[in-house]
Amino acid sequence: MQFELSNEFLSILKEDIARGDKDTVAANIRALYPPDIAEILDEVNLEEAQFIFRLLENEVGSEVLMELDEDVREKFLASLSDDEIADFVDELNTDDAADIIQELPEERQEEVLEKVEDEEHSENIADLLAYDENSAGGLMAKELIKVNQDWTILRCVREMRKQAEDVDKVFTVYVVNDEGVLLGIVSLKRMLLNSERTIIKDIFEEGAISVKTDAMAEEIIQVFEKYDMVVLPVVDEFGRLVGRITVDDVMDVVREETSKDYQMMSGISEDIETTDSVWVMSRARLPWLLIAMMGGIVGAMVIANYEDELKLSPQMAFFIPLVVAMGGNVGIQSSALIVQGLANNTLSKDGMLKRILKELMVGLLNGLACSIVLIAYSYVFSYPVALSLTIGASLLAVILFAAAFGTFMPLTLHRMKIDPALATGPFITTSNDIIGLFFYFMIGRLMYGLAF
Amino acid sequence: MQFELSNEFLSILKEDIARGDKDTVAANIRALYPPDIAEILDEVNLEEAQFIFRLLENEVGSEVLMELDEDVREKFLASLSDDEIADFVDELNTDDAADIIQELPEERQEEVLEKVEDEEHSENIADLLAYDENSAGGLMAKELIKVNQDWTILRCVREMRKQAEDVDKVFTVYVVNDEGVLLGIVSLKRMLLNSERTIIKDIFEEGAISVKTDAMAEEIIQVFEKYDMVVLPVVDEFGRLVGRITVDDVMDVVREETSKDYQMMSGISEDIETTDSVWVMSRARLPWLLIAMMGGIVGAMVIANYEDELKLSPQMAFFIPLVVAMGGNVGIQSSALIVQGLANNTLSKDGMLKRILKELMVGLLNGLACSIVLIAYSYVFSYPVALSLTIGASLLAVILFAAAFGTFMPLTLHRMKIDPALATGPFITTSNDIIGLFFYFMIGRLMYGLAF
Repeated sequence: MQFELSNEFLSILKEDIARGDKDTVAANIRALYPPDIAEILDEVNLEEAQFIFRLLENEVGSEVLMELDEDVREKFLASLSDDEIADFVDELNTDDAADIIQELPEERQEEVLEKVEDEEHSENIADLLAYDENSAGGLMAKELIKVNQDWTILRCVREMRKQAEDVDKVFTVYVVNDEGVLLGIVSLKRMLLNSERTIIKDIFEEGAISVKTDAMAEEIIQVFEKYDMVVLPVVDEFGRLVGRITVDDVMDVVREETSKDYQMMSGISEDIETTDSVWVMSRARLPWLLIAMMGGIVGAMVIANYEDELKLSPQMAFFIPLVVAMGGNVGIQSSALIVQGLANNTLSKDGMLKRILKELMVGLLNGLACSIVLIAYSYVFSYPVALSLTIGASLLAVILFAAAFGTFMPLTLHRMKIDPALATGPFITTSNDIIGLFFYFMIGRLMYGLAF
Repeated sequence: MQFELSNEFLSILKEDIARGDKDTVAANIRALYPPDIAEILDEVNLEEAQFIFRLLENEVGSEVLMELDEDVREKFLASLSDDEIADFVDELNTDDAADIIQELPEERQEEVLEKVEDEEHSENIADLLAYDENSAGGLMAKELIKVNQDWTILRCVREMRKQAEDVDKVFTVYVVNDEGVLLGIVSLKRMLLNSERTIIKDIFEEGAISVKTDAMAEEIIQVFEKYDMVVLPVVDEFGRLVGRITVDDVMDVVREETSKDYQMMSGISEDIETTDSVWVMSRARLPWLLIAMMGGIVGAMVIANYEDELKLSPQMAFFIPLVVAMGGNVGIQSSALIVQGLANNTLSKDGMLKRILKELMVGLLNGLACSIVLIAYSYVFSYPVALSLTIGASLLAVILFAAAFGTFMPLTLHRMKIDPALATGPFITTSNDIIGLFFYFMIGRLMYGLAF
């Protein structure tokens, strides 16, 4: 049963809280799933949120904590004591527990870990904390169900009764050998539908797809998507099973990655949302604007250099926005295609040169089309021939350059292990603009020189 | 075991195919998972692909067919006979089967469906084809496992032996009543760990999260992400269980949706990739370029209108790119935030007016910062006071307008049920440019009028 958070529900809830009516609030809240409770907590103020939160049992509370918006969770954690956080950490799976610990300020991390009751659990968490956040080790949870290939189904079921307590979402059971090396998987379906005395070795699927602990987020996402996986086992360098990553964690990462690319293109430097304060939003957006400003100033200096041409032919100023904008548009199209191709791993296997040549062909086709439109317009409106040819020729030059540059930059950034999406941001587009202006006026100077 | 497609592997394979060596090719290919085989088929030419494809058994072949790039699959389907396609459709789950049928030209669809051996299967597919492609009905598969709440686990297992044959990925078992209404779910884990004689009614989880057949892709994605789901049951208007959607299908849709937004911002009108031909790529990119051209021409007409001002003060031309670019940057930032917020369902619950006011505040802060930088620059470089104030004031005006317009447009489009991402595309940004030019020159005319 889905839950739609209506303003009505919220205001009634706030009234109940203001009255201190714990029973009513508790009754209303307990009927909801953790993600819905978290949604409510994101919408009320901190005191109201704490009121609600204290009514939750530890298990639900820990789940709600994980579902909160990061900013809200930060405030919550700051207001909870080390013991309280440790209680939640006890309830969480190791991957979520490690995430929570990591979000705490460094001084608190050790203290909270020490207060965690289950020692094995806190050791497991400490293990996970040692991995890079964006690697398989950092994303995985240690809770999983594994059986030995020599066991019967009956024995498996007995062992699973012990292991399954901690594992809430069981999709597949992993099959290992005596050394703990991952051999394959056996589905619960198969275990259910075979006789008790069947030996795992005879029914399991050999050769599971897995990733090593040091695999990075990008590779992990691609494996999930390519093989339509729901859960992915993680192995160490010896092939021993050490953890698993579930698809919902990957979907979160996919969302973050695509958000990052999108924000990069629109020139937003931090992960902000419309719920953030005016100050936070300004701060995230100003850096790129200032870079664009610098670029604009350089552009002004470029044009200033050709002041004489402008005095001779002020009409050249009319087409400045057009030439610059076209360069920007074409450049962004080229860069975006590359960035998308890299993100989805659908890039053709061409070399750099072949790819740029292809882009130039596209640029030529489109550039000619646009130039012809432009020359036709200027002819109809009786602009001087020198001007018509100038804008036509420089538009073509600008488009060709932008297409090549727009393809070259993200690929080069990628090779240098820098985020290729930077190429779609204001930094590169501003450079494109400036170079476009150079082309425009140099060609203009040439044409006018020829005309006289 | 992951598979990395190396150029070496490819060339050896191509040699084997050229020699007509079926056995070697078959041996190499059969060791691979369907997604990997599909990757190979995407990289070789059509004849080589068909050579490989014919070596596959129907079951594997059908899976490979689904994993192919859409363009490649189109060519394949065109080269296969109706009977051959029907054989593959027999092997596929109803959701994939429906997708394949839909990709065929209309004339072929009926014919292929008639040739499908399993009549019940083809009826199911026909049912699914009746739904909107992007709705739950269009995304779901009919293959699922359901049990009656009054059955014992023993009886469930017996029933499941019959049903499970068609269902390869079993995550949860759905619990229904005698009318087929979805009541809840029971996990395989729970069924495995309880005694045979337990009645389902006593152990299942009541109240499953589900969607109706007419729910659209956007809502479905949000449910998956919010509740960390792996599989989502679909019910009809009476609450009866009719199908299920698995998370891998949703991940594909998520990818497509975010790609669309990204492409919209970069001005690409079709779903193209770097592997497409020069002609296809030009065709997808030209429309937006022409719109930008029109915008540029209108911009030129606007500036032409102020030719006298330009003659009096050619220096006004220097800052045209800057003012226009800043308006574009700020506008894109505002629009992108809204589009992202809508896509991720993280938009604050503010009304339109409050939101625009907030944006204006951000615009004011950033605009003032930028204007001050600009005025400082023009002071240092000894530009006339009238010009300095013009560019400072118009920059501020342009930024404020762009912030408000960039917020207003996507929200309005969204309310009109139009894709809000259109606001980030060249169409809106071009309008922004033109209006920016108006501001610039109007303020310039005003300032210079005041100065004289």
